[in-house]
Amino acid sequence: MIIVLAKGASDDEKRNIIKRIEGLGLAVHISEGKERTIIGAIGDESILIEKPINSMPGVESVMPILKPYKLVSRDFQSEDTIINIDGIEIGGKKIQCIAGPCSVESEEGLLETAKAVNTTGTVFLRGGAFKPRTSPYSFQGLGEQGLKFLKEAKDATGMKIVTELMDPRDLDVIYKYADVIQIGARNMQNFRLLKDVGGIDKPILLKRGLSATIKELLMSAEYIASEGNRRIMLCERGIRTFETETRNTLDVTAIAVIKKLSHLPVIVDPSHAVGRWDLVAAASKAAVAAGADGLIIEVHNDPQNALCDGSQSLKPEKYIALYEELKKVAAAVGRSL
Amino acid sequence: MIIVLAKGASDDEKRNIIKRIEGLGLAVHISEGKERTIIGAIGDESILIEKPINSMPGVESVMPILKPYKLVSRDFQSEDTIINIDGIEIGGKKIQCIAGPCSVESEEGLLETAKAVNTTGTVFLRGGAFKPRTSPYSFQGLGEQGLKFLKEAKDATGMKIVTELMDPRDLDVIYKYADVIQIGARNMQNFRLLKDVGGIDKPILLKRGLSATIKELLMSAEYIASEGNRRIMLCERGIRTFETETRNTLDVTAIAVIKKLSHLPVIVDPSHAVGRWDLVAAASKAAVAAGADGLIIEVHNDPQNALCDGSQSLKPEKYIALYEELKKVAAAVGRSL
Amino acid sequence: MIIVLAKGASDDEKRNIIKRIEGLGLAVHISEGKERTIIGAIGDESILIEKPINSMPGVESVMPILKPYKLVSRDFQSEDTIINIDGIEIGGKKIQCIAGPCSVESEEGLLETAKAVNTTGTVFLRGGAFKPRTSPYSFQGLGEQGLKFLKEAKDATGMKIVTELMDPRDLDVIYKYADVIQIGARNMQNFRLLKDVGGIDKPILLKRGLSATIKELLMSAEYIASEGNRRIMLCERGIRTFETETRNTLDVTAIAVIKKLSHLPVIVDPSHAVGRWDLVAAASKAAVAAGADGLIIEVHNDPQNALCDGSQSLKPEKYIALYEELKKVAAAVGRSL
Amino acid sequence: MIIVLAKGASDDEKRNIIKRIEGLGLAVHISEGKERTIIGAIGDESILIEKPINSMPGVESVMPILKPYKLVSRDFQSEDTIINIDGIEIGGKKIQCIAGPCSVESEEGLLETAKAVNTTGTVFLRGGAFKPRTSPYSFQGLGEQGLKFLKEAKDATGMKIVTELMDPRDLDVIYKYADVIQIGARNMQNFRLLKDVGGIDKPILLKRGLSATIKELLMSAEYIASEGNRRIMLCERGIRTFETETRNTLDVTAIAVIKKLSHLPVIVDPSHAVGRWDLVAAASKAAVAAGADGLIIEVHNDPQNALCDGSQSLKPEKYIALYEELKKVAAAVGRSL
Repeated sequence: MIIVLAKGASDDEKRNIIKRIEGLGLAVHISEGKERTIIGAIGDESILIEKPINSMPGVESVMPILKPYKLVSRDFQSEDTIINIDGIEIGGKKIQCIAGPCSVESEEGLLETAKAVNTTGTVFLRGGAFKPRTSPYSFQGLGEQGLKFLKEAKDATGMKIVTELMDPRDLDVIYKYADVIQIGARNMQNFRLLKDVGGIDKPILLKRGLSATIKELLMSAEYIASEGNRRIMLCERGIRTFETETRNTLDVTAIAVIKKLSHLPVIVDPSHAVGRWDLVAAASKAAVAAGADGLIIEVHNDPQNALCDGSQSLKPEKYIALYEELKKVAAAVGRSL
Repeated sequence: MIIVLAKGASDDEKRNIIKRIEGLGLAVHISEGKERTIIGAIGDESILIEKPINSMPGVESVMPILKPYKLVSRDFQSEDTIINIDGIEIGGKKIQCIAGPCSVESEEGLLETAKAVNTTGTVFLRGGAFKPRTSPYSFQGLGEQGLKFLKEAKDATGMKIVTELMDPRDLDVIYKYADVIQIGARNMQNFRLLKDVGGIDKPILLKRGLSATIKELLMSAEYIASEGNRRIMLCERGIRTFETETRNTLDVTAIAVIKKLSHLPVIVDPSHAVGRWDLVAAASKAAVAAGADGLIIEVHNDPQNALCDGSQSLKPEKYIALYEELKKVAAAVGRSL
Repeated sequence: MIIVLAKGASDDEKRNIIKRIEGLGLAVHISEGKERTIIGAIGDESILIEKPINSMPGVESVMPILKPYKLVSRDFQSEDTIINIDGIEIGGKKIQCIAGPCSVESEEGLLETAKAVNTTGTVFLRGGAFKPRTSPYSFQGLGEQGLKFLKEAKDATGMKIVTELMDPRDLDVIYKYADVIQIGARNMQNFRLLKDVGGIDKPILLKRGLSATIKELLMSAEYIASEGNRRIMLCERGIRTFETETRNTLDVTAIAVIKKLSHLPVIVDPSHAVGRWDLVAAASKAAVAAGADGLIIEVHNDPQNALCDGSQSLKPEKYIALYEELKKVAAAVGRSL
Repeated sequence: MIIVLAKGASDDEKRNIIKRIEGLGLAVHISEGKERTIIGAIGDESILIEKPINSMPGVESVMPILKPYKLVSRDFQSEDTIINIDGIEIGGKKIQCIAGPCSVESEEGLLETAKAVNTTGTVFLRGGAFKPRTSPYSFQGLGEQGLKFLKEAKDATGMKIVTELMDPRDLDVIYKYADVIQIGARNMQNFRLLKDVGGIDKPILLKRGLSATIKELLMSAEYIASEGNRRIMLCERGIRTFETETRNTLDVTAIAVIKKLSHLPVIVDPSHAVGRWDLVAAASKAAVAAGADGLIIEVHNDPQNALCDGSQSLKPEKYIALYEELKKVAAAVGRSL
């Protein structure tokens, strides 16, 4: 950690700061510049990071040197993490698509959607049984019944199930049915829930919070990893900005940034990023071109009657057409779909 | 709800839209303008709000007329909600301060801080026993031991306890000790938790999410209210912007906006808004001048050794001095402290 | 325009509002809903848009129906605008690249860069002679000497010149040398300058402001178009968000949004969007995949010694390699490069 | 400047970086930590700041130590700047109000407004003759005729004139009439215009850009100061966020931040910050409580017929009432009005 002293910091203040750092077990290294004195604290920075050195008298600013995450960083593991789910790889050359309705609503509807998307070769089926809804008066999901419908669709198609965990009390039942457990954007910093899924042996799809920085997303992944579960996919799903034409703003370059900072695979959710079905294709192509390892796309057999997010859901035939287009973009960047 | 038809929408499209609205049990009212045809849907808008009318062919845009929250709105209750906690009122003429450390760390430290802030007449003591921390390697709170220390400080001073609930599994133990239960910014949209605290009989302090809109904050309050608990305080604690000099940006006019839209009292957290102790006074004065019903301020007997948020914590003597200054500002706007 | 009356608006208030609208020459159309009365104003909305109807007693909210821009909208012109510059088309099937240094610094350096990028088939050369710099102590550009160097590079390669106009006093000299005149992000709402370039007969590259909405960008284009100049390219160059890993956040779906709202071609500036050369490739591919009509990329023969934006500049060889990759992505989305 | 080397940076890379820094005339100071090597560059940091050291091989990150502005910083001048305008002080104990219409529209209207606000003791009259408008079809101001009306109001009341300069071609005529020249938010980074007003002998009111950081505002002030004009007031007028209930979000703590970083007086524009007349009072009180040196408030004799910003304009009687309330808040924080 670098501590920049204020112009005119007194010798006493300087001594106090040095004493404080040394008292925490770190060594100091002083550099007297022309305009500022700088103190380098040498040793375990994590001890210092919690301390309010920046509010000590005589301190102008404090700059951490190390990243606050470890297990999920490229420094810790230089090769890409490839998550293997019953022989299907996420994070390898092949881009994986996860498709299906926002929420599970009916047995037939889900089955119809699953069969349709599966014709493309899509092997991951999404569908929410427990739904985080902004309004208490909105449809909140079918609960375990929804999971059972997902199981039936899985039995019928062989697809893997991706579904969201909202509350620790649902972990057991979700665990029973899910192949990948999703942590939603609103729970990205539900730290107790992160620890819970860090303790299990299923892969986690962790969504970036509505206005989370990439660093915070990686810190949340670190929570999961620190409990033992290293099979984590990070999901960019748009961030909140002042622009109102789209629901959120897809941070497409976050894919490349994350891949520089971390070894974990990156999935993009174009549907939530844009919030309009007619922009999903453009967002999906951009994500594939920018290096995404996967896409999670909302598809509904009857969007006009969807109980949730109908506006941003593709009809199966549109999804199938998009899939063909994405194959070309994937090939253009040396990947396959 | 107002549905604006696209320029050149066909008669078929128009008929379909009308059929759809009428099929949902609402009446339609058509207005042919010079450049656009507008359809008004008359009846229960909440039925429509969930439907993706905006993605129907021929629709250019859809505009809801009503606010999506009810119980917490001024329309529903025109007079201010005043929350009475053992005779102490929040939302009345007197502004209430809530002071104390970010996290409970030790019996003596907490007691010292509590006694000091209590000398001003401050009757609410804050302190976290379960702490949401960005890093899994940071101090996570003392758990129930922290609650016991709060209880001791309460016994010694008569202060009321305000403490955060992070996880439904802690509700019973928190309920036992807390006078006011705080829902933190990161849990503002933890909808299941909101329902949980909606079902109990203790007042709730609901913090605005990091990038939540005022409408979303009110929707989250609606979740609590819809379960029966109407004793809700809303807390503005700064929103995330691109400005980096402060931890967040205090949205000081949100106080007045909320008071127009809702009858609930508004508390401001200047400490988290600015993230630096040397700006807490300015933020606190601004909040009082703008109409806040209360402040929640971090005070620590030894900020340099705080395990959490030391940089933004006031020393007790600074808090006491600030309290005197705030009295004057409160008086200037017809309130008392 | 739709005027929603407040719950409990009095008959007098209602009469006043109607009188006001009719007094401005519009007709009214009243719709009494269950919870709100709605007044539709029928006629020329642009008359109303300037009036503070929303602050009249009894008004809850006001919703414009029409878009505030006309000439640049798809409503006005449904087919794409294709800008022809001496036989080279922008906005057609072929994606055009604009490459070159941030600022013109030396005759040899510029020539070397121009020749290198031209080997790919790139026919637009960028380079700033007048530079908007955040610090008054930074290099401010070579002025007309820079334009002369651009002219020499043009003579040597046949490339077209794209250069920025910052101030009306430079219009004459810029006009003499430029094939495309750039209006920078910081001048997107320099309305007088927009009018100036609206009065000339050269194509304009208009950059989106640092935190401008798409609507505002289109309104600025309308300023230019309203003076007669319809040869306008819109440029997405990243918007400001709270994320700090990149200089700005590339709003990649803005490309598709703009193409729905407007007939004008869209150029993307990946260099300014990300601010780091090692992310330019990912951003460029995403932009092409999402439908951009062109890219404007910073290339410098010696980035380490660039006087401006060296960190985000590609070396010529990197640009040449990227160009080959972009060809594949363009082909994958049915375009060419 | 601090240069953090990447983990595993080679000796060659290290040598190159050192050579580069020394080649620019600075000394290096190396600190080998446990996890990272850090190079301190000692000497004139401004030489380095322009160089893309951060993109050199082996560099992980670069941290400037010094602030990029000088003349406007507290380091440069520790005592507050007090601007004296014919005996009236801005930046002293007395808070100055600047009141008047958004745009000058008529002789009588302006005079009526001026006389009304002047009754409170307000001695600065605002009014735009050249107006930056989002739409080319909106009223663009009366031009010099507007300035003449301002002059008449000045003659009648003795008030000082504050008016906006949008374009360098208007500088001479504005100079003739204005006592304070305003640079609007959209021109905060119109660097040529900043230099222009840096070369004159009238005080400047510099507004913060729509999404400008405080550092950028100070850099723009530095542009003015570096040309010789040190009589600069900085104006916080709300920043753009995702919140839509208000036009912008008033960054009220920016007042205190700026006062720590700079010696210049800070004016707040509550009218543009909130965009609604019914929130102007709350915003104004907050600003005064937080330490503002002045307020610039839109007042119009007939807001319903204002040609510009009528929704956010106070009627004269509301302004007069607010002024009385503000006096109390000012007194509460040791100031006067």
